[in-house]
Amino acid sequence: MIITMSETRTLASYIVNGRCEDIPADVRHEAARSLVNFMAVALGGSVDPAVDIAIRALTPFSGKPTAAILGRVERLDPLHASLMNGISSHVDDFDDTTPQNYIHPTSPVASAMFAYASANRVTGRDFLNAFVLGFEAESRVGNAVYPAHYDVGWHITGTAGTFGAAAAIGKLRGLSEQQMVWALGLAATQAAGVREMFGSMGKAFHPGRAAQNGYASAILAETGFTAGERGIEGPRGFAAVQSAKYDLSKVTADLGVDFNLRRNTYKPYPCGIVNHPTIEGAIELHRKYDVKASDIAAVRLHVAPLVLDLCNQQGIVRGLQGKFSVYHGAAVGLVRGRAGLDEYTDTAVNDPAIKRVRELATASGDATLTEDQARIEVELTDGRRLTWFVEQSLGNIYRPLSDRQLDEKFRQCAVRALPGTAAEAVLDRCWRVAELDDVSALVDATVPAVQRA
Amino acid sequence: MIITMSETRTLASYIVNGRCEDIPADVRHEAARSLVNFMAVALGGSVDPAVDIAIRALTPFSGKPTAAILGRVERLDPLHASLMNGISSHVDDFDDTTPQNYIHPTSPVASAMFAYASANRVTGRDFLNAFVLGFEAESRVGNAVYPAHYDVGWHITGTAGTFGAAAAIGKLRGLSEQQMVWALGLAATQAAGVREMFGSMGKAFHPGRAAQNGYASAILAETGFTAGERGIEGPRGFAAVQSAKYDLSKVTADLGVDFNLRRNTYKPYPCGIVNHPTIEGAIELHRKYDVKASDIAAVRLHVAPLVLDLCNQQGIVRGLQGKFSVYHGAAVGLVRGRAGLDEYTDTAVNDPAIKRVRELATASGDATLTEDQARIEVELTDGRRLTWFVEQSLGNIYRPLSDRQLDEKFRQCAVRALPGTAAEAVLDRCWRVAELDDVSALVDATVPAVQRA
Repeated sequence: MIITMSETRTLASYIVNGRCEDIPADVRHEAARSLVNFMAVALGGSVDPAVDIAIRALTPFSGKPTAAILGRVERLDPLHASLMNGISSHVDDFDDTTPQNYIHPTSPVASAMFAYASANRVTGRDFLNAFVLGFEAESRVGNAVYPAHYDVGWHITGTAGTFGAAAAIGKLRGLSEQQMVWALGLAATQAAGVREMFGSMGKAFHPGRAAQNGYASAILAETGFTAGERGIEGPRGFAAVQSAKYDLSKVTADLGVDFNLRRNTYKPYPCGIVNHPTIEGAIELHRKYDVKASDIAAVRLHVAPLVLDLCNQQGIVRGLQGKFSVYHGAAVGLVRGRAGLDEYTDTAVNDPAIKRVRELATASGDATLTEDQARIEVELTDGRRLTWFVEQSLGNIYRPLSDRQLDEKFRQCAVRALPGTAAEAVLDRCWRVAELDDVSALVDATVPAVQRA
Repeated sequence: MIITMSETRTLASYIVNGRCEDIPADVRHEAARSLVNFMAVALGGSVDPAVDIAIRALTPFSGKPTAAILGRVERLDPLHASLMNGISSHVDDFDDTTPQNYIHPTSPVASAMFAYASANRVTGRDFLNAFVLGFEAESRVGNAVYPAHYDVGWHITGTAGTFGAAAAIGKLRGLSEQQMVWALGLAATQAAGVREMFGSMGKAFHPGRAAQNGYASAILAETGFTAGERGIEGPRGFAAVQSAKYDLSKVTADLGVDFNLRRNTYKPYPCGIVNHPTIEGAIELHRKYDVKASDIAAVRLHVAPLVLDLCNQQGIVRGLQGKFSVYHGAAVGLVRGRAGLDEYTDTAVNDPAIKRVRELATASGDATLTEDQARIEVELTDGRRLTWFVEQSLGNIYRPLSDRQLDEKFRQCAVRALPGTAAEAVLDRCWRVAELDDVSALVDATVPAVQRA
């Protein structure tokens, strides 16, 4: 007798049966941290032109405007609101990362969930439970195919994210196990997003579409739209088709015991995470030696090889490109001593002092360095040589941002969309999300009183 | 000096500049044949439960109902109408096929175009031109990645179809070359659909989503939503990510001279095309020897190896599964002497006589046979052995359905949605599409006067 394991069905069963009271306290707290960080970057990104354009383009196709868009006065149907929340929360490349699979995990899941909760009554307790389960589904699918899937060029946040949104919305809708199998199957067959979009608005489109398509998968499955039963593990399913190598045991191992939320990390700088150690080193050199831009004669970066695979862009002209240029990260750190949202605008990328230092910089891959490490050498016009080695970059899993640092990040981002008092109300409700009677109170608090000029 | 060829930009330029007067007469006629066949299968499939369910699930999310759904009384926004048209026109597995890449090419392109033309004024001349260009974009992207892309498990109709819909709608919207590059990039990053869905409603979802997402890509690009510039050929673009081997020269070779429409084929039977020679052989045996179901003792099928890769389903219970069972195809041919839409219902799949013969059948792959060939051996209870060899199956590129056979196919399908006189009006307008002042007159003619019970 052959027993054929179905990872899709096992995962579906876990999601359908998962209860809030089974989630350990530390995981609940990490979920709140993830939602605070998510809301920070969604509000910060809500003013981005990519969001303006997407709303303008797609509003004529929107259904009844029953859902708020985080940080915006416009309302759309919940599927389109999911898309917009996803674009907002990823467009600054400031959202969270699980380093074991390079997924930015909260955006696809929470973007759909807040859109859903805006249009439907959801208690904070149900919201938290569905979020943890959606996060888990997404992470486990991603773990199974990482790294081959990512290396070939998939933007894993877009692909795995579709499963996460389907699982979370399916949980909120109360799908049966069979319906959840179909929802995951429909997610498998919509999983998409390629890294060729990095440096364009297309990148932030990925978690948005993942949120929207995952949400639609759950609704279709609930209504009886069938899918293949083995969307994840089948011979022509997600893993086999989208990854040269994969390990399906990672989908189901220690379900209910191991929670991927425990490995979530939050960025101190709004750009590709592999640039972070370089940026931190550059900021340290700026602070310690009071480096002036005009005194810099050469910059040599020694980085993990993946950095050059992902962030080797020179000759850049747009803010979005700066996020994928380790040279730009080094330049803003050295010239301005900081790397906040203002250092990744079109203006900053074209700032003559930053541009000069960026173009002086060279980088070499060093396989002895981890992706949390970097060594920077700066040569000054007076002949001095300065160096800095970052052994563990801030925000990584060993040096996490504290709750208070997350508060500060939230305030830095939220100010773009909301006045201070309104932002504090949102922040408070994010931390207390599990206690809310109706999560729409949180969503409503993110809507500005008046449209920005 | 290194000249970097951009296939994406070259293709975009061709689409933007392509003129109706540059399309040869034979290609225009083949376009009309493709549209007649498309409309046949869209009307035939419009009554399928998959369409009912998708409409029920997604109507709450639809924007203003400015577009008709082919064969239905409901109206939705044009993006959702594109999805429904795509499901209708593929759900019976009766739509067209270009054998060199196994794409079902018209569904993703025409599904979006008829939805667009329902909500916007489009002349028949512009419609035909955009259809030919969209078909060409889709086919060329598919040619570049076939067969490795298909073999690993992609449903190439879903993936390549997204490019076709983006190109066609982008052409109708009058995109600039830069906007068309972005539209193709957004298509590249949404291209999806895995073969694990075969035998479920998820399969027909693929051309529907391709139509909808390609349409949205064009609208987003028109509004200024940016994408990577090298969506097709970039190192992390569609070809490299979704195919282990590819030949980008096929995207651009003989543009404007070679038209893939010339290689389009139309199915006589509503199921996976690789089953067709087996079905034809079974029908011939039924006719020639007047075989009775109860006299059959054994059925041995000798088929091209791909048939077993795609259509090796036994133990089936649903009509949709029958379409991917070469055994079911053999059984209906032998038992009923025909293989029309009625032979692929749940009822037919569970018909005891058909089930018995299906379960008697065995199949073996024979690499000396082409995918247009099959040899059938039937053993009768009286000991007689009958055999039939099909050398070129009906409907393939060497034995195409005639215009009159397409008319008959249209009538066989359309009767499911429309009374005879209404169907004839649609058929007439399909053949004369290039002469129409406003293609909405064709779309409107497909709408039933009253809702079916």
